[in-house]
Amino acid sequence: MVEHSTAKAAQKDAGELREGEIAINPPAQFDAGLYYIGRIRTPWQRREDCPKNPRETDATCTIELEARWVDGLAGLESVSHVVVLYWMDQARRDLVLQAPHHYTEPRGTFALRSPVRPNPIAVSVARLVRIDGNKLTVVGLDCIDDTPLLDLKPYFASTDSVPDASVGWHAGTKR
Amino acid sequence: MVEHSTAKAAQKDAGELREGEIAINPPAQFDAGLYYIGRIRTPWQRREDCPKNPRETDATCTIELEARWVDGLAGLESVSHVVVLYWMDQARRDLVLQAPHHYTEPRGTFALRSPVRPNPIAVSVARLVRIDGNKLTVVGLDCIDDTPLLDLKPYFASTDSVPDASVGWHAGTKR
Repeated sequence: MVEHSTAKAAQKDAGELREGEIAINPPAQFDAGLYYIGRIRTPWQRREDCPKNPRETDATCTIELEARWVDGLAGLESVSHVVVLYWMDQARRDLVLQAPHHYTEPRGTFALRSPVRPNPIAVSVARLVRIDGNKLTVVGLDCIDDTPLLDLKPYFASTDSVPDASVGWHAGTKR
Repeated sequence: MVEHSTAKAAQKDAGELREGEIAINPPAQFDAGLYYIGRIRTPWQRREDCPKNPRETDATCTIELEARWVDGLAGLESVSHVVVLYWMDQARRDLVLQAPHHYTEPRGTFALRSPVRPNPIAVSVARLVRIDGNKLTVVGLDCIDDTPLLDLKPYFASTDSVPDASVGWHAGTKR
């Protein structure tokens, strides 16, 4: 049913733009397809209840992997942190300039971590507490309950950690 | 044409398993669709020429964003590092246990950064050198030339950097 949702995604919220926001016409077709490989269980039932970023909460979340993929967890129990990729399926996908309510001016989609983006894939680094069968207990996610899971990867400090990285526009603002 | 590629992805390389590898039957349908929003130009034309990880090379790569998304770059020029999401479209998607040739034993797909995974989305942290129109010059990618781009995000050290993260199984091995 993938093609049919293209038009729906483009039209979702159509016309509901904040000042300074710009929507474009997305492509007519998708180029590749994703499997939902599980679900993320969190304490937050509505988007407005979610923390603004993953370090704002100590809440424990549970990642439930679909049974067919469970053998893929072998070895993951030895990592301290997991890169969690998930699909923000409630977000529109057609904005290039956007004005999140907690910032004062519109910015480009690719300069923001907003869920609103052409491919709404979130990347979060979560601390792994334990794995029981198909369930991972983690700390450090900020998504809505029942969010579709796309991938899990080991976090390698050697390639993924850049402690002195900076975001110029963000200096002095609240994220 | 997204549905048709499901079967193809599942059958690609079918039967060519290394010792200890396990393939499963992937779902019959995709759950969501992706847009390719640009292409990544790199010096590497074949998979075997690519560096094994992004910190193994100082090569400069160019990310070419499709024209329709260019306004989304506004503000990104102020960041030092970009999270680059791309689609490893040459990888099979049905392995849960795999034995990459540079490791000695098979491990679960989710314990590895191998391109072979149910949703072959790569996450790399690249240093941003400059932006000219729709082109970003970056250092720190390791993918094959012409790789499809999925997303760009600002790298926030506050949420993305975990310098003391560890990968137990990897200690003492070469990545």
